[in-house]
Parts: sequence; structure tokens; C-alpha cells
Amino acid sequence: MTNNRSRRIAKRGDVEPFIAMDVLRDATRRAATGAAVYHLEIGQPAFSAPRKVLEAARSALDSDALGYTEATGLAALRERIAAHYRQAHGVDVGADRIIVTTGSSGGFILAFLALFEAGDKVALASPGYPAYRNILKALGIDIKWIETCAADRWAPTSANLAALDDAHSLAGMLIASPGNPTGTVIEPDRLNELCATARQRGLWMISDEIYHGLTYGAPADTALSHDPDAIVINSFSKYYCMTGWRIGWMVVPQPLVRTFERLTQNLFICAPAISQVAALAAFDATDELEANKAVYARNRELLLTALPQIGIDRFLPVDGAFYLYADISRFTNDSREFAARLLAQTGVAATPGADFDPFSGDHYLRFSFAGSTDTIERAIAHVDAFLKPLR
Amino acid sequence: MTNNRSRRIAKRGDVEPFIAMDVLRDATRRAATGAAVYHLEIGQPAFSAPRKVLEAARSALDSDALGYTEATGLAALRERIAAHYRQAHGVDVGADRIIVTTGSSGGFILAFLALFEAGDKVALASPGYPAYRNILKALGIDIKWIETCAADRWAPTSANLAALDDAHSLAGMLIASPGNPTGTVIEPDRLNELCATARQRGLWMISDEIYHGLTYGAPADTALSHDPDAIVINSFSKYYCMTGWRIGWMVVPQPLVRTFERLTQNLFICAPAISQVAALAAFDATDELEANKAVYARNRELLLTALPQIGIDRFLPVDGAFYLYADISRFTNDSREFAARLLAQTGVAATPGADFDPFSGDHYLRFSFAGSTDTIERAIAHVDAFLKPLR
Repeated sequence: MTNNRSRRIAKRGDVEPFIAMDVLRDATRRAATGAAVYHLEIGQPAFSAPRKVLEAARSALDSDALGYTEATGLAALRERIAAHYRQAHGVDVGADRIIVTTGSSGGFILAFLALFEAGDKVALASPGYPAYRNILKALGIDIKWIETCAADRWAPTSANLAALDDAHSLAGMLIASPGNPTGTVIEPDRLNELCATARQRGLWMISDEIYHGLTYGAPADTALSHDPDAIVINSFSKYYCMTGWRIGWMVVPQPLVRTFERLTQNLFICAPAISQVAALAAFDATDELEANKAVYARNRELLLTALPQIGIDRFLPVDGAFYLYADISRFTNDSREFAARLLAQTGVAATPGADFDPFSGDHYLRFSFAGSTDTIERAIAHVDAFLKPLR
Repeated sequence: MTNNRSRRIAKRGDVEPFIAMDVLRDATRRAATGAAVYHLEIGQPAFSAPRKVLEAARSALDSDALGYTEATGLAALRERIAAHYRQAHGVDVGADRIIVTTGSSGGFILAFLALFEAGDKVALASPGYPAYRNILKALGIDIKWIETCAADRWAPTSANLAALDDAHSLAGMLIASPGNPTGTVIEPDRLNELCATARQRGLWMISDEIYHGLTYGAPADTALSHDPDAIVINSFSKYYCMTGWRIGWMVVPQPLVRTFERLTQNLFICAPAISQVAALAAFDATDELEANKAVYARNRELLLTALPQIGIDRFLPVDGAFYLYADISRFTNDSREFAARLLAQTGVAATPGADFDPFSGDHYLRFSFAGSTDTIERAIAHVDAFLKPLR
């Protein structure tokens, strides 16, 4: 017996692209032809992992079988991450509350499945990291948007959250500070209000702290300082320069540890073993990492000075992370087409705002300044020449 | 305004443990106390990655920034995997149809989200790999079981699939050959029938081929030889001895490539870069890998000879993979308690059948023979002494 069904792609799997990765693919293919490429499209540090990390990895290749680890991560790494919270934030987090993840990406999948049912409503700020909305969609979670504005320094407020919850009865909220692409650091008072509002209303607070360590003014608070039951997601990718190693961590409340352990056993088995061993050394590489950060700080100053002179004079806070999110409405209302043309004509890869903002993204462009200063300088010159006929 | 909601764990995230990983955790903690442990609980080869793989990894540490790669994987690795299908199976698969994944685990998450909506019904054979059912549950997919039997050599048949589809209107089926924990290799004729039935009925066929290369009689066919649109999931973990490297791949039909690319961009960004570079060398390490396999073959013979002599004389086919799935109903109807006692009293870690079979697992135990021959010999002696008073 046959029937008239057919093999179909699932609607939930039909997510939008992560456009920055599409641009990376196009830029990589362009580079393969020998053409010049300036990578300002992704949050990819110009630096490899620190020397001590590479040394730890070499030593693991010599002496470690690099088999499966415990699902929640190597005990020594979990202890070291817990110590980091005591040292950096004065927050006491037991090592048993640390879940080592396959990048922050692994943390999002675990958190969304552990905390939200299909159909639950979750608050998300716009502009923001595109994978939030695309993973939430794939997992059947209903996004309720907070469109941030200049008056609030492009970050969500507790009043935004309360109003949205009154209207929609939310299950949780996801925040990021420093934010991507905004660079906004949420001040301690405002972070405290957001956490208190979420807590009072029984909403989960997920705090993406992947850009911690990368601030150019006051450092960013961890949400754990304001809500001991916040779900914190972090990674060795950005400050620690270990993007391709796919290694991150979460801090989860004690009663949820076993839930997360069971989920990660089944969904991931464990994070990459060599990356776990190597990441342990990352906490001892502060000198090298601070020197790297000084390069981002210099790149940031370069952009903040040069861009207004070449016609890009409206951008978001840039308190932290390594992105400058620029309003380019003077030049286009189709930043995707604009970015494609910029890449094709000059080799400068940048990410169109549609990746970060489904509402107003079409007249924004994100520049990453995680690359070398030379890359940034050359890119500025090319963008200048590109914009000349348009100014 | 507050309300009386509270922060709750989501039902869908409350999955069962991957019991083998729980046993690994307990065994690792026992080993940390200095007590002897014989790891027969997980599919963890005694061997590290091949020398050529380690050499490629060392060289990547010296010369590669190990940043993000293209989401679907390094072009060279995808080409090499495509070449493997031509060489090993005579099947022509374009490199553009290869998606490099974070272990086979990454492949399952991507496949289930791309192919199945929440509420869809998917056929699964029991006994089988526990993460199948636990990931499917977390993603809201309804499992319809095929309980396999000795008469069918513990593999599902096309008649099973047709009957189940008549009753439930399935969206797809997942098969594994060689199977875990059964070791069953599905013969080409039967695989062809299964694929034809799925295809005629418009059901997706997902074929987990992670134990390919590990067969002790005839090699296993790829489902792609029988259905060019099968979704194949594979990994460098088992035959290639790269478990902790978290690196695998999928083969997907051409029209689905972009769907999988978008999903993996958002859910994983990319597979670990060092593992991708290293895996490229795995295809040149056949001599070393075949020598490793000869050890598994010896271990298998040891178990097949010794176990019946010590009272364990009923087990499933063991055509391939490196597991022996034993009926221990003579000794217990609670294999979880039995496995815990065996570990506590002797240091022999084995995985209770409940991990693989929600129906009859309580009187089965899975022994992995991927360890060293010395481990297997010592474990047999300990199991013998443990069973003596029970025989």
C-alpha cells in the first residue's frame, strides 16, 4: 500500500540564514580566487588562541587519549571556571553548577530546551544576535520583541519587560551585555532592575555574557550578581580567542544541573576534549589576551574617528564587544545588496543589519573590528573610495 | 504587577539520562579514588586518533589560526569525504552534499529539525542507541517502536515498517547498521527493501552509519546505494578513533543542502576547526586503523568464547560495531542495579540494557569491547568471580 505523502522539509527547520556566515562563505570563496578580502563580517579575532592554550593543546596531543569526557566537562575545567567567578565577580558558584558546552551555541540549545516548551513566549531585544531568533524558531518558541532605541542606549529596560509580560505572559527573557551588534553594556542598576523584574514575575533570565572581558569603559556585570538563579551562557570564543575550538560554558541553578546533564549527554555527549584541556590554560593567558584587547581598542578608535569623516556618522554605543553597528540609511535602504556590492567591488566583507534586526536592519551594517589594525586601516580606505560617488 | 507563575523546567527538556554516560561518570569518579576500573561501558576505542591525525593536528596548531570555518565544513574535508563514497561504496556524492557536523550528535539534531515537525511520528527500532529517542522526545517528535526479535536478527524489516506506517502514518524512519547495541548488520537485500518501502511511502530514511568500517564479516552497505535521497549520518568517532574530537558528517539530498546549511550556521556555527583539519588525515591512516580493528576482532572472539563458559550464553548478533549485548535474565531482572553492583564490587563498568531498550532492557547488559585486550581479559575474570555465587 502506498499513499500520496511525500518527503517534505519541515517548516520549523526552514530558518533564516545566519547572514554573517553566508558573507564569510562568499568572502572565503572570493579569497580562494586570489582576490583581496578584508574580513569585517564575523566576530573572528585576528589572533589565534594564546600561546599557553596552544601549548596545552600540544601537550594533550602527546599524552591524552582525547576520548569522551564526562558530559558536563572535565572536573578541572569546571573548577577553574568556578574560580573565575570568585575572582572576576566575587560570586560564589560551585563547580557542580558549571556545564561545559560546545561553544555558546551548545548552551543556547540546552537552555531553550530545558526552560521553554514549544509555544512558550520569550522576550528578545532587537537588534541582537541572529542565532537567538533562529534557534528559538526551530524549537517552536514564540519570540516577543523589544525594539530598543537610542534613548535607552539600545538595550531593553525593565519597563519594556514588564509591559511585554503584561501583554503576552512570557516564560523568559534573553539579554546580552555587552550586546552584539550594539556593543551596549547594560549598567549595573539597569541590569539589576531587569533581573528583579524577571524574578518577581517568575520568568527565566538567560544572560549571554560571551563578550565579557571585552569592554572599553567599565567592565560588564554578570547577571549572577543580580539573580543567583540566572542562566548564564559564556564562551572561550571571543575574549579568549578560541572561536574555532567550539568551547564554552553555562552556569545553571543547582536544581537544574541534572536536567542539563541529561540533555547534554544525549544532545552533545561532551564538548571537544582537546578544547577542554586547552581552555584550562586560557585563564593563565591574561597578559597576551589583554594585549590582544589593546589592538581591538585601537581599531575601535580608528573606526570612531575615521567613519564620521567618510560619511558614516551614526552608530550604536560600542561600549564593548568588537562590533560597530552603523546606520547607513544615507546610502541605502537595502544593506544586503549594499554589503554584496561592497564585497564584490572592494573585498571588504561586512554584515548587513538584516542579520540582527528584522525591523530596521535594512539600513544598518555591522563592522567587526576584531581583525588586525592593518585590516581595519585598509578596509576604511576601501570603504571611503566606495562611498565617494555616493556621498 | 506580579503573578503566580514560577520558573519551571520544561517537560520536553526533562529527558532520560544517557545511562552509559552516567556509568562513565561514576566509573571516572571511582578511578579518581585510585580504585581499578575496566571501561566496558562506552564505545570508546582503546586507541587515540591515528598518528597521521595527531600529526595533522600538531601542524594545525603551528600554522592555522583555527578560527570559524564555513558552516558546512572545510572544502577540502568535504571533497575527501565525497571521494570516500566513490572509493568505498562506488556511490557518487557531490562534495556540496556533505555537511560536516559536530559528531554524529550534531547530525541527529540537524536531521530531526530539518525533516520532522513537532508531533510527527518516526519509526525507531528497539533495542537502539538511546540518544535517538531522547533527542526525538526533546524535539517533540512522537516515536513509534519496532521491537525487533531474534527471528529477524534483531533488525527492523520492511514488513515492520509497512505495518507501522499503515497504523500511524509515519514521517520517517531511523535505522542503524551495524546497530548499537545489537551489532547487527542489515543484509543488502533487507536494507534495499527497507529503503524501497520508505521511499514508496514518502517517508524519510535516516541511516546512522557511525559503525561503518567495523564489521567482522561482510562490510555494511550505505543506504545511499539503495536510496540516493537517504539522509546518512556518520562520524570519525568509532572506526577512526576520534570520539572526543566531536567530528562527523552527513550526506543530504541536493535540494536540502541550503536548509541544512542555514540550520547548522545558527545551531552550531561550525564543527571544531582542529578536528576538521585532523580528520582530513584520517582517510590516510588505514593501516593503523585496520590494526586497531584487529584488536577489536580479537576482543570479540575472547568474549564470544569466554562468556558462555561463565554463564552468559545468550547475546545478539555482534556482526559489527564493538558491543556485545547480553541477555542476563538468568541473573537479574534489574540490570541497572546489577551494573551498579558489578562496578562497585569489581570495577567492571558495563551499560544496563535500559539505555537501549525501554521494553526488555532490564535483563540485558551491554559490554563494549573497544578497549584493550588486557582490559577485556581482566574484566572477564572479574565478571566470572562476580557471577560465581549466582550461577
